[in-house]
Amino acid sequence: MKLYSFFRSGTSHRLRIALNLKGLDADYVPVDLRTEEHLRPAFKALNPQGLVPALEHGGRVLIQSPAIIEWLEETHPEPPLLPRDPDECARVRALAAIVGCDIHPINNRRILETLRRQFGADEAAVNVWCASWIGAGFEAIEALLAADKARGDFCFGHAPTLADVYLVPQVESARRFKVDLSPYPLIRAVDEACARLDAFRRAAPAQQPDAG
Amino acid sequence: MKLYSFFRSGTSHRLRIALNLKGLDADYVPVDLRTEEHLRPAFKALNPQGLVPALEHGGRVLIQSPAIIEWLEETHPEPPLLPRDPDECARVRALAAIVGCDIHPINNRRILETLRRQFGADEAAVNVWCASWIGAGFEAIEALLAADKARGDFCFGHAPTLADVYLVPQVESARRFKVDLSPYPLIRAVDEACARLDAFRRAAPAQQPDAG
Repeated sequence: MKLYSFFRSGTSHRLRIALNLKGLDADYVPVDLRTEEHLRPAFKALNPQGLVPALEHGGRVLIQSPAIIEWLEETHPEPPLLPRDPDECARVRALAAIVGCDIHPINNRRILETLRRQFGADEAAVNVWCASWIGAGFEAIEALLAADKARGDFCFGHAPTLADVYLVPQVESARRFKVDLSPYPLIRAVDEACARLDAFRRAAPAQQPDAG
Repeated sequence: MKLYSFFRSGTSHRLRIALNLKGLDADYVPVDLRTEEHLRPAFKALNPQGLVPALEHGGRVLIQSPAIIEWLEETHPEPPLLPRDPDECARVRALAAIVGCDIHPINNRRILETLRRQFGADEAAVNVWCASWIGAGFEAIEALLAADKARGDFCFGHAPTLADVYLVPQVESARRFKVDLSPYPLIRAVDEACARLDAFRRAAPAQQPDAG
């Protein structure tokens, strides 16, 4: 397998965590978003959307981290990242979707560049924008975690799930945008529990070959 | 089952389509986003994130349309909205995620309100913003549809899947933002094929009890 990734991309980060949790090795192919490598014909021939990550396996290219991570779960079911019970599964997928749909897409590189270009946003305005969406999503996640009395150290149950795979890169990004995390003690505790696991540590942006 | 929905919400629209395709009836509970009913304590007690849609069943509340639709697929497998083959499944989920992660969340009501409030965006600027993200996503979807030689009238294969469930509400929204759809003949053809099906027609915003 080949993993097309940018060290600081949150969606690449979540896929790296999922691959590590499944015990899978993939050759790391860096795609430098800073030099717009993702928009060049060579990469768009692999992924017409021109976004990372992408995962190549057996001559096929999978795109979109939510689709790739569900594919990993289907093709490499152990250890499971989703509970068996459909209601519990919906709970985990909802936590993941709060990050995957309602936080990350609004704060990623291409959006912030457009805010700067179309609306003349300066760094302070960009940080206000990011803090507002991260705050709204984290507030919901914190409330959902607080309501789950059966929960251990992670977002659900006693082992990492899809929800942790999505949450940890978003916490990393929140720190980069200097978001105050003090209102979210449960999220911070989950992040700390994950940071104790090798699969999460090895997936961190700073550990990637293209970090810098 | 109770469906908490706003007629014009794209995520509510996609869940209505999925329910109809599965042949399920749910009591329609309108949540008026225009009067901020979704932010009131009564609704936030159901969904701490304060967003529609939500689906109540047997005393439980499911949130986040991607999680609810996967739950529907698991608990009501017929007719299937996902192919059995994991690679094909990843293709369908990727098409859905292009809409669900990279188009819809950036153009929904709360984002556009923030653009107006934080950056003084007028209607023309809002339409440029929407057209830019819808265009980027539709260009990728059009390329993926064109590359799939085994495809019939829908996004994948010969029957509606998750990809159509996500795409049709986004086409509806694109029309509302006056996006030129002429560069996307394959997307338009899929939209027309879906519009011939009762499940899609009954889910349309104009057909809902709170439309107006």
